[in-house]
Amino acid sequence: MEFADHIKTANVKDVWLRQPLHPPSRGTLCITGHHLLFSDRGEGSPGQVLLLLRNIDAIEKSVENLLAYSGLFSSAGPSERISGSSGTLTIKCKDLRVLQLDIPGMEQCLNIARSIETLSCLDDVSEMYPFFYRPSDLSLPGQWGLSSPEQHYSQMKELHDRWRLSTVNRDYSVCPSYPSAVIVPKSTDDDMLRKVAKFRQGGRFPVLCYYHRKNGMVIMRSSQPLSGANRKRCKEDEQLLQAVIDGSDKGYIIDTRSSQQAQHARMMGGGFESKSCYGSWKRLHRQMEKGKALQESFIKLVEARGDESHNMDRWLSKLENSKWLSHVQTALSTAGLLAECVERDGHSVLVHGSEGTDSTLLISTLAQLIMDPCCRTLEGFLALLDREWVQAGHPFQQRCAHSAYSHARLQQESPVFLLLLDCVWQLWSQFPLALGFSEALLQRLATEAYASNYGTFLCNNQQERLCSTSLFHNIQCVSYPLPPSPLSPLRCALGVTEKTHCLFQVLLRPRERDHYCNPLYEPTELAIWPSVHPQSLQLWRGFFLRWTQQARHLEDAREEIRNMVIQWGKLALS
Amino acid sequence: MEFADHIKTANVKDVWLRQPLHPPSRGTLCITGHHLLFSDRGEGSPGQVLLLLRNIDAIEKSVENLLAYSGLFSSAGPSERISGSSGTLTIKCKDLRVLQLDIPGMEQCLNIARSIETLSCLDDVSEMYPFFYRPSDLSLPGQWGLSSPEQHYSQMKELHDRWRLSTVNRDYSVCPSYPSAVIVPKSTDDDMLRKVAKFRQGGRFPVLCYYHRKNGMVIMRSSQPLSGANRKRCKEDEQLLQAVIDGSDKGYIIDTRSSQQAQHARMMGGGFESKSCYGSWKRLHRQMEKGKALQESFIKLVEARGDESHNMDRWLSKLENSKWLSHVQTALSTAGLLAECVERDGHSVLVHGSEGTDSTLLISTLAQLIMDPCCRTLEGFLALLDREWVQAGHPFQQRCAHSAYSHARLQQESPVFLLLLDCVWQLWSQFPLALGFSEALLQRLATEAYASNYGTFLCNNQQERLCSTSLFHNIQCVSYPLPPSPLSPLRCALGVTEKTHCLFQVLLRPRERDHYCNPLYEPTELAIWPSVHPQSLQLWRGFFLRWTQQARHLEDAREEIRNMVIQWGKLALS
Repeated sequence: MEFADHIKTANVKDVWLRQPLHPPSRGTLCITGHHLLFSDRGEGSPGQVLLLLRNIDAIEKSVENLLAYSGLFSSAGPSERISGSSGTLTIKCKDLRVLQLDIPGMEQCLNIARSIETLSCLDDVSEMYPFFYRPSDLSLPGQWGLSSPEQHYSQMKELHDRWRLSTVNRDYSVCPSYPSAVIVPKSTDDDMLRKVAKFRQGGRFPVLCYYHRKNGMVIMRSSQPLSGANRKRCKEDEQLLQAVIDGSDKGYIIDTRSSQQAQHARMMGGGFESKSCYGSWKRLHRQMEKGKALQESFIKLVEARGDESHNMDRWLSKLENSKWLSHVQTALSTAGLLAECVERDGHSVLVHGSEGTDSTLLISTLAQLIMDPCCRTLEGFLALLDREWVQAGHPFQQRCAHSAYSHARLQQESPVFLLLLDCVWQLWSQFPLALGFSEALLQRLATEAYASNYGTFLCNNQQERLCSTSLFHNIQCVSYPLPPSPLSPLRCALGVTEKTHCLFQVLLRPRERDHYCNPLYEPTELAIWPSVHPQSLQLWRGFFLRWTQQARHLEDAREEIRNMVIQWGKLALS
Repeated sequence: MEFADHIKTANVKDVWLRQPLHPPSRGTLCITGHHLLFSDRGEGSPGQVLLLLRNIDAIEKSVENLLAYSGLFSSAGPSERISGSSGTLTIKCKDLRVLQLDIPGMEQCLNIARSIETLSCLDDVSEMYPFFYRPSDLSLPGQWGLSSPEQHYSQMKELHDRWRLSTVNRDYSVCPSYPSAVIVPKSTDDDMLRKVAKFRQGGRFPVLCYYHRKNGMVIMRSSQPLSGANRKRCKEDEQLLQAVIDGSDKGYIIDTRSSQQAQHARMMGGGFESKSCYGSWKRLHRQMEKGKALQESFIKLVEARGDESHNMDRWLSKLENSKWLSHVQTALSTAGLLAECVERDGHSVLVHGSEGTDSTLLISTLAQLIMDPCCRTLEGFLALLDREWVQAGHPFQQRCAHSAYSHARLQQESPVFLLLLDCVWQLWSQFPLALGFSEALLQRLATEAYASNYGTFLCNNQQERLCSTSLFHNIQCVSYPLPPSPLSPLRCALGVTEKTHCLFQVLLRPRERDHYCNPLYEPTELAIWPSVHPQSLQLWRGFFLRWTQQARHLEDAREEIRNMVIQWGKLALS
């Protein structure tokens, strides 16, 4: 089906647009396959508003028959009545902006609404805008991603004694959500990895995600072991973890579920590393909410933020009730615990919950920011996100399908990535000099994860993103025959990395880099230990209250600082 | 009694000091008449800590008999037992810092505690430190205050047609808490003012505090009329207010009590301006908490801030329960209402509650900041505080006698001035470019109001501050015989303005000015309307969480911006 089939009314004149921070303006509304475009003709007006339909989370219609006011017993026929009426569409965006359109003509209004409803949530990834976005200053295929696992491994020479790069997953058959290459202990061969993968949910066997140069300790991550009610064991899994320890006294396992949840998971076929089988590992349980609970928390917070009652007690009580800040606190303190194990106590740590695609990534990312100065530069941070979220298989497509307004409650939505950005913002605001990027970057990423011109956050993992040619290329590199690929041809043909542009690459171009760097950045080699006192954690106003006058003033101030630094740089050079 | 009489132990060696943001250090503790001095001898230590005893709000003793651990049945005699023991003093300061001293020797510890308890709350103003503070770079008598009422009046030529400067209060007999000169309608002579003063609580007859150049409207302030249960009237009071209106359609009275509270006040001899007697004035009631309720809110917030449970829900619930942010919201929204009446609706406004020395000053000050760009410079803001708080008779000595820790609950304490500074901080953080001063200034003022080297916040009004010679000088200026002065000779002899230094003057010296100006300041002629959405108001972490690592990092960042601006200025000049 063509986009045009979904568009009955493509243009409407004399539409009133009401949006935050601007006076209402009158103009023409157009709907295209991917955009809602509003062009006005007034002076001092915003000019054009171009909104990705994908950014629309919910739409509310309110149709009002104008003739009702001019007398119900008018002599006009029914068709005239309809044409004389008007409708209002309230458009709630995934980036929390709310727009209102007053559209003349009830039928036109309903047509527009229907088009938006259909086109804003197309399921077919290949029809999404990143496949159509062709800016003149970018060419395809461009460089995609910031660093491959191969490059990452080759840069870390210190690792090479004890760790190797395995391509056991080169065709994504061992673990569909892992990248094609991962770092594992040298003593663990690919056959062992295949066995371990069968013992871990979704095949996510333990892999290295961080090497702490100061003391040689590592962070590993995986999914839960499938020990099940029968307490099944996997010798290779135990050997792999033993190889991680390699002589040092012990390692820690941080399980992002409560002990009770982990017990319960065993009844359902999942499980945890029991003391008897993994004697060198000490398990710590820290319950982190994810999935539905987190999504509901997000929805409650956004609802509270929209409360217009001007009642301070009610606001604070709703803020408390949303639990969002509690989730921020738990994430930061669990990440702090992880960093403490590695940096202060000198132990290696394995992190997992159940799937190992959400909370696991959240705390491993935060711990790396806390410990590793290289992750705190603009490039370093984007590369960290690329490794730990995009390549590591956080299912962006499922998690970010809807934001806080949609009434379509699917099971898979969860703002885990947004929670990460919020936690990074807390770090940023507690250490205003230690991070090389700005709050604007975090805001931009929060928007892009939900609706984007770029392909970076499309799909759920690398396998889904790759195209058949690159898979083919991969096959050429290996020396022994492969099992038949489990991928459907359609999936293989997506070609995100060849047919879309990469957000991370774009954010590192000079102009964007100027905008997204922190003008006050002063690198420090020290770990940055966040305070997790509730008194120290704040609502991320830059995101949650973004479309308000107050946020605008703060942005002005930041812009002022940035300009000053740029001017200063010029003066210093001249 | 001499200070020395209160000091039994002046020096103790081997004292351990624990304070926020520093490692513990060992050194010598000295007590003088006004200070607690700790000098340590270690490397990398804070060196010296000099604390005004006046800054100490509460002291907790915990004495520990060390011999108890070495065996109760020791052969040592009782005196040896005492000398072998030690004590810990927890010192809670008015600026919310908490220090801990481990002092060897129980008797020495108790002596130190007793000295601090007595010397930290001496009642006699003339014995306070500002009368002894003699820095080498300041000489006495210096310039005191930023502008006299006479200067203020003479600068506002636009006023002179309709307003005059009255010296009816030159000997403080008409209104003890007013300055010697005030601005009143030209048509109201001094005899009328004397009658009006008798009809207003504490003699605080309506005076002009702000003239809005854009439309000629004014803000007046006063105390409540003493109409009482018999609905007494005062013709002169009615005439004075009528003269304020002078032909324009009407004025507003903002009463900072609820309508019910105002009714209740009438039963107690106070009252409000009834519609029948003040036909041109429309009364608006906005209940603002002050006095005990505000003090309790402050205490609850400080208690919540010290909660160590790491429980986000409990913190948010305690924050809500303290109601502090509700008071901030009410103050800002009432000030916004006042500014709206003057700036948007073009009406003159009279503000009062009961005494007219607390909430009244709070909202008139905030409204001036909102409307008048001149009040937003560093000088302008200090001059505003000088006029509206120091000269206008906010009883600093009573209100700021104790802060949030003291167990001595007196009736008169109330953190109204602190609430003002918090509200100004909210404005500052909502409009980071519009105010010419920095958060550091607000922090400094919050500290100085409670304990200071300077005389600015001593006493409760100008009468108490003046010395006999300046009163004499005042008498020389007037042409007709004065009634006998009601002032006691002791009060007259205080001489704050001659024998102490003025904080405001010191804050405007070049070095301090550099430190307290806002490097991002960009003056705007526009009114700055604060958002009073509860979502927009934040805890003033710079004050309430000041002695934490987090606050330190934020100060570092501010310092960085400041240095950048200074460097930039130098480069631009060279």
